[in-house]
Amino acid sequence: MNGTTRDHIIEAADQLFYQKGYEHTSFADIADVVQISRGNFYYHFKTKDEILDAVIGLRLSNTQKMLDQWEADGKSAADRIRSFIQILIMNRAKIMLYGCPVGTLCNELAKLDHAAQAEANKIFALFRNWLSRQFALLGRDADADALAMHLLARSQGVATLANAFRDEDFIRQEVAQMNGWLDMQCTSKRRASAHRFT
Amino acid sequence: MNGTTRDHIIEAADQLFYQKGYEHTSFADIADVVQISRGNFYYHFKTKDEILDAVIGLRLSNTQKMLDQWEADGKSAADRIRSFIQILIMNRAKIMLYGCPVGTLCNELAKLDHAAQAEANKIFALFRNWLSRQFALLGRDADADALAMHLLARSQGVATLANAFRDEDFIRQEVAQMNGWLDMQCTSKRRASAHRFT
Repeated sequence: MNGTTRDHIIEAADQLFYQKGYEHTSFADIADVVQISRGNFYYHFKTKDEILDAVIGLRLSNTQKMLDQWEADGKSAADRIRSFIQILIMNRAKIMLYGCPVGTLCNELAKLDHAAQAEANKIFALFRNWLSRQFALLGRDADADALAMHLLARSQGVATLANAFRDEDFIRQEVAQMNGWLDMQCTSKRRASAHRFT
Repeated sequence: MNGTTRDHIIEAADQLFYQKGYEHTSFADIADVVQISRGNFYYHFKTKDEILDAVIGLRLSNTQKMLDQWEADGKSAADRIRSFIQILIMNRAKIMLYGCPVGTLCNELAKLDHAAQAEANKIFALFRNWLSRQFALLGRDADADALAMHLLARSQGVATLANAFRDEDFIRQEVAQMNGWLDMQCTSKRRASAHRFT
């Protein structure tokens, strides 16, 4: 294993919060994965809230890296948006088991009325702002943010239903439709209206 | 209060599971709302799993009643589907606070790998089958189920993002688009193809 013990704790917690939920994950669950003593654990983190803050920090940083990578790899804004749509396929196995890591964490923290809600929502905001910038580059300045939110919502909805029904074909079908929808946005640029991207 | 003590427990648990999540709700939380003794509580339910089963039963029954009502009230299949879309507006205040009761419960039970998952997913299946029947009535037999899943997914995605961003305008904007999308489905009946309802 590379990285510090602290890093290992955060990475283990990141996975467990995703797979089991934040509330359902105990200190003992995390310590079991990292294989450290209770004393060593408490040296790094005193509360689960502190671990959650670190996990959200890690997710923000990993999300930013992924967006930067898509930015570097995509030849056009449409290509970059397709990278976003494609994560439903890339991560389909985990999505069918555990849903979307961002959506399910934000939903859970909202129910817990947790102080870290706003910070967790920043992960969504990273996607939103990045997608919005891509739509603006497509010439859709006027409704770039609405298009970004629309695509983000569709992606979230697919994750929730794919998780409930464990249906890979459904994911592929919806991804094909989202790509078709994107093509329509590219051809209708600068003719945006509220109903244009239905 | 009307109904039996057992009913009151189930109704209180239904609300608390929605507002706080299943895992985070304790026996004590439920007993506090119903204002009964621990002894009386245990007389009705021995475990939280038993309460969950009863809550899912209540939700299935309430969902079926709502669908029957829409069926009775809607003059056309399109009208009935609009009733489904409209619940995002009707329930917007709670959705912004707690997300969708169906989606968030199914997501949580999936993470808990809970035995009641399949039963909870039946609530989604009620909506799916009902919507599918309405799309078939619109003449879209060939892709009725895919259209139902698509609309269910869009509705779920809107709920997740409305919850994260607490944005009522976003809900209204997406609902307008879903109604626009529905109008398109009505006019393109029997010309269905994989890309037709993008």
